[in-house]
This record gives sequence, C-alpha cells and structure tokens, in this order.
Amino acid sequence: MLDAEIIAVGSELLTPGKLDTNSLFLTEQLNLLGVEVVKKSIVGDHRHRLAEAIRDALRSVSLVILTGGLGPTEDDVTRDAVASATSRPLVFDESIAASIAERFRRFNRVMAEINLRQAYLVEGAEILLNPRGTAPGQWLDHNGASILLLPGPPHELKPLFTEQCLPRLRQRLPPVSIRARMLRVAGMGESDLDALIAPVYTRYTNPSTTILAAAGEIHVHLRARCADEAEADALLDEVESQLAALLAERVYSRNGDSLEEVAGSLLLARNATLAVAESATGGLLAGRVTSVPGSSRYFRGGFLVYTDEMKTALLGVPASLIAEHSAVSEPVAAAMAERAAALTGATYALSVTGYAGPEGEPPGLFFIGVASPAGVEVRRLQLPGDRNRVRAFAAQMALDLLRRKLLAP
Amino acid sequence: MLDAEIIAVGSELLTPGKLDTNSLFLTEQLNLLGVEVVKKSIVGDHRHRLAEAIRDALRSVSLVILTGGLGPTEDDVTRDAVASATSRPLVFDESIAASIAERFRRFNRVMAEINLRQAYLVEGAEILLNPRGTAPGQWLDHNGASILLLPGPPHELKPLFTEQCLPRLRQRLPPVSIRARMLRVAGMGESDLDALIAPVYTRYTNPSTTILAAAGEIHVHLRARCADEAEADALLDEVESQLAALLAERVYSRNGDSLEEVAGSLLLARNATLAVAESATGGLLAGRVTSVPGSSRYFRGGFLVYTDEMKTALLGVPASLIAEHSAVSEPVAAAMAERAAALTGATYALSVTGYAGPEGEPPGLFFIGVASPAGVEVRRLQLPGDRNRVRAFAAQMALDLLRRKLLAP
Repeated sequence: MLDAEIIAVGSELLTPGKLDTNSLFLTEQLNLLGVEVVKKSIVGDHRHRLAEAIRDALRSVSLVILTGGLGPTEDDVTRDAVASATSRPLVFDESIAASIAERFRRFNRVMAEINLRQAYLVEGAEILLNPRGTAPGQWLDHNGASILLLPGPPHELKPLFTEQCLPRLRQRLPPVSIRARMLRVAGMGESDLDALIAPVYTRYTNPSTTILAAAGEIHVHLRARCADEAEADALLDEVESQLAALLAERVYSRNGDSLEEVAGSLLLARNATLAVAESATGGLLAGRVTSVPGSSRYFRGGFLVYTDEMKTALLGVPASLIAEHSAVSEPVAAAMAERAAALTGATYALSVTGYAGPEGEPPGLFFIGVASPAGVEVRRLQLPGDRNRVRAFAAQMALDLLRRKLLAP
Repeated sequence: MLDAEIIAVGSELLTPGKLDTNSLFLTEQLNLLGVEVVKKSIVGDHRHRLAEAIRDALRSVSLVILTGGLGPTEDDVTRDAVASATSRPLVFDESIAASIAERFRRFNRVMAEINLRQAYLVEGAEILLNPRGTAPGQWLDHNGASILLLPGPPHELKPLFTEQCLPRLRQRLPPVSIRARMLRVAGMGESDLDALIAPVYTRYTNPSTTILAAAGEIHVHLRARCADEAEADALLDEVESQLAALLAERVYSRNGDSLEEVAGSLLLARNATLAVAESATGGLLAGRVTSVPGSSRYFRGGFLVYTDEMKTALLGVPASLIAEHSAVSEPVAAAMAERAAALTGATYALSVTGYAGPEGEPPGLFFIGVASPAGVEVRRLQLPGDRNRVRAFAAQMALDLLRRKLLAP
C-alpha cells in the first residue's frame, strides 16, 4: 500500500483566483491503483521553499508527485528543488537538448538559449517523454521513494501520466481494487446522524467512512480497498446495509442522484405531476426542480407569491385567513399548496412560506406544505443560518417532504 | 511583511471531486493586509499527519491558518493536532460548553454528548466566537507565531474571519495600504472586453488588473499597493476612470453589488415593482431577485409556466399564439411579460422562455422580455453551454435587460 503527496508548483496557484485542479485528475488515477493521496501542497516558484516541501513529503510518503515548474525560465524551479532536496546534481542530457532543438525547428521557431535549462535531469532520473510540450517529465527513485516531476499544463500532464507513469506504477503495486459508495441523507442533523451510525462504522477501518454535511443534507461516503473487486463490494454491502437499515427512509439516494432527481423519478414512476407555490424561497425550490433534464414531463408550473396581496390575487388564498393567522402560518401554507394543486391540476403541490430574514420575526421560521391526492400536510420548521442558508434549507426540506409523501402516500 | 500558510483539513478534500476553496477567500483577505500566502496544504482527518503539517509550517511561516476539522466527531482532529504540534494540553471551557448547549436549546434539539468535544481549547488560545455554527474558532499565539483554527463551512468561516481575525491581524501588521476595486460588467464576452480595455490596463503594473469571467458576467479586479491609502486610491481612480469610460453602461456595479442588488435599488429609487414569468429558467430568475434582503419592497411575485398549457391557464397567453409561433418565440415572450405585469399590477415584468436542453431545438435559444410603462421589448439570445449554464445565463441577461430599461426607460 502506497501513500502519495501531490505538490503543485506555481506562484499563480497562491493567488485568490486560482486553484490546483491537476491534483483532482491525479488523485482519481492514483485511487484507482489503490494509492492514497494523504496530503496535497501548493508551493510558489521558490527554490528553497519547494525543496523544503519535498523534504517534508519524503519523510512521510513514498510517492511524491510534483506538477509544474519545469519550463525554461528562472521561475521554473522544480528541477533545482528536487536536486537540492535529494542532494543530487543536475546533469545535462544531450538527447533532451536535441529533441528540444528539433521541436523548435519543426515549428520554424528560433530557440532561445534559455530553453536548454529544460535539458537538465536530476542525476539518476528516467526521462518521461512529453511529445505535447517542450519540457520532459522525470521519474526519480530515491532512497525507497519515487519522485515524479510532471509538466503543469493539463493537456501535457494527463496523457504523460496515463501513458508513462501508470504502467510504471502498476508494475510496482500489488493489484488492488478500490470501490466507493455514497448514501445521501435528508432530514437529520450531522451530530444526530453520527450518534446513530457511529456504532456501526467505527467497527470498520475498511471500508472507511466519511460524513459531509450541508444545509439539510448529509453525504455518507464509504470506501473499501481490497485485493479484488468482489471482496471490496462484499465489504461495502456489509456496512452499507447496516447503515441503510439504521437510517431507513432518511436515505434518499444510494447512487449519487440529487434530491430533485429522486423526487422527479418518483413522480414519473407514479405518472404524477407537480406544482409549487413559493413565498420566502421565491423560486429557489422550482429552480431546483427544473434543473433536472426532462423535468418538463412532471413539473407543470407554479406561483411566486411574495406579498400577502399576491397570495390572494394569484392563488386565491383568502385575505381573511392571512389576516387571522399571518402569512407565515400553517393554515396559509396549507391553503397555498391546495390552491396551487387546484389551479394547475397537478397531482402534488408544494408550498413554502417563512421569514428568511433579516425582516420578519422570528427569522428562520418556515412552514412547508404538500398537497396530495390524500389531502394536505404542513410541517413547521425553525431553521438556523442567514438568509441564503435558510432559503436553501427550506427548499431542501420541501423536496424531502415531497419525496416522503411519494414513498408513503 | 508576514508569510502565511493555509492548511485545509478534511479527508473529503483529498478525494477526486473536491477542492479547498476557502483558501481563495482567505488569500484575498490576507493579500489586502499585505500578508503573502507562501504555501497551502491539504491534509486529511488524520491527527498525526496534521500535527506534522503544522510543525512543518511553523518552521517557515509565522501565521498558520487551519480551516475545518473543528466539528464534534472523532474525525474532527484539528484541536488535537494543534495541541500535539505545540505540546500544549486541551482544556475544557465551560463558557463554550454553555453556548453549545444553549444553541441546541434554541433550536429545540437534544444535544448529543459528543458535541462537547467542541468545548476544548488549546491551552492559551483565545476563543473566536462563531454565532453561525456550533464550534468556535481559536486564536493561539505560540513561540512568536499565530495559529488560527477556523471552521470549515464557508458561511461560518467568512464572517468569523472578517469580524474577528481581520481586526487582530491589522493591529499586528505595519500599515500597508492595499486597495482594490472591482468593475462588474454584463452583456459582453471576455475576449471582446479584453480587446477593449487591454490598451489601458497593460500600461500599469500598479494597480494590477485581473479579469474573471462567468456566464454573462465579467469582473475586472484592480489592486493597488502603496505606502498610504490616498496614494493607492489615486492610482485606482486613474485606471478605473479610463476603464469605466471605455466600458460605459456595460459596467453595472463598481462597489461589489450584484446585478440583482443593482436592479433592486433602481426599482426602489423609482418606487417601482417587479413581477416575473419564467418558463425555461423555472424560478432561477426570481430566486436571484429574492435573494436580496428587502426585496419584498419591490418584488410582487410571478408565474412559473413550464408547460404550454400553464402559459395559457395561469398567465392567459392565448393558446393560438403559442400554436402559431411556438412557446419559444418573440410574441410569446412579449405576451408572458405583459400578462405578468397586468395580473400582478407590477410596474415592470420580466419573461424568459427558451430551450435549456437537452430537449427542444435549438438548445440555447432563448427569448427574454421586459414589460414596462413604455411597452414591451423582447431580446433573442443564442446562449452557449449546457443546461445549467444556459439557464443561469438567461436569468443574468434578463436581469441586465431590466437594469438597462430602468436606466433608459
């Protein structure tokens, strides 16, 4: 089993507008080989700092992958830094120099002398040919670890890695299968979920379990690592089935589908249609429903009724009902859902009314309703967070209410 | 001048689908103070590795910012790792415990015991209050360096950093004035914009200019760095005024306001109201309008008319008009806007109809309409990109159409 660190080199990757995305590709490729990326680093074009980062990495992992910093300018410090970190000299390689010169000739360009900086190899390194660029990659085995120097541009890096690094890595690694699953859960908080399932997942280190939470949504990731695929799948089945039993109907998806996709599929399967009546979410809920390709097969339409007056004028919610209970109330949420279903002829209708803040008291108080052939049902929610968060949360809870209603009408 | 390292904590950030984006916000904030981010690291939920990364960072920088890993579960190892890296004990803080318990009471939830893990402080650390989440941040001064433990969720991290870390950092730093401006531009492509303004901005290295583009929107960032504020502002004035003159009415905001905020302010200033009729965007447009706090003062409501039938039933668009021209046509967009204004009594109404794809031909064809006291106007758009992108693009263009109409009725 191999642990890897990826070091992205380039001062531009330390500015507020840039992210290192090469590491996503590399991580995916490495994971498939059973190699775990245990750390990623991003270092500027700074010889000394980069050498230090390489030394730090060599203390804890046996595969260090560097991307970028192989160009011809003074700013390209990766070769120098690896040489310094491993106390090896740089040696001029005639074959690289010849192929760089040839590349310039092919494009009818004059080669500035500085390009020959790219012809230096860290002593002992193998050349990784890079026909799509000028600077070749390098593979250095050093004190039991491997250090890979790869070009930064993705269109050079990706084929070079696939064609030349993967075969070398496969030769050195025991055959391993890594398989992953994800349970998507709605309608419970992170700590409650953890308290519920920790007794199961803490008994296993393989598969490993990671829990990620957003507003009204939790993803439980399982990852198994075995000698073969069947064994990994069996381990995943074992843990997933226990978690699924504990979480029951709170699991809305086991294949990566979003809540709006799941609700949409359930509507389609029942040959049912949907309408909405949104106040505080102002279109967010319908925006999610209609983000699904093909949603026109079940989404009919809806009403954005942001003011009391519009709730009456567009939906026909009685003004007296609003006057008596206020617009943020169970009876108004119920009437909104019922009227939306009646006016559109949809089988199901969702309603949302609430105080998103900063106006209205108490902020975060929402009522969500669902009208169905069986009648109308309303939930009261007190949601935490700022305006954006409570709006997103309320839309999420409304979709989940629909899903549950479709499962158990 | 201070050098900083940002360490993002979380095993999910080492998977092929996730990037650490908090560091972009932090880098921007730090740069404005004259602090340079010289390294970023991403480490999994692994106590020992994280402690090692913190020790490595402390050897080369005097400001270490950790994001994430402050939650209640066994996976949340940041507190432990900082304690280990600095050889300080963790101490239980009664005041944090009380505020966590209070938070659960406020939301009427039972507090699982595990939540009290979040009440431990690294000895000597100051509490950074986090009213938007359960776990507080921590500020630790240690052997001449500062170590900041910040929550991972962006909606907690950003305000906490701005409100509590920035003032502390400012106190400790020599006054360097870095001043920034941003021109937000709608309605032109990135390469056209660059061709237009490059002759100006390439003449200056201070301020520096960065151009960032999204669907239908471009941000031109200017950043000047001087010994004092007045000098920086003067440099910015000089460049900004030239760019603004070239871009003219395509600049919709120079103070960071979003397009929906700008349109909302214009409506308020004219004592006008807005309604929408959305087909292909299905609520996205209204969702943006209502994301603005106080939008209830000008947004009346609207119609989501996803099917032809609903365009007729809810809005009263004549079925014959749809039959003759199709639902994605100039006359239907015009009728949608006019009917939305008439039914809601709003001063202005926006309409969107189009083919978001993958169904409908040609995908990306949209008509957006605006009804105003002066009549109705429709634009035809052929938008590039996938379903999500063309929907977002169309909503953006509709808001910009409203803005221009409000400026020059």
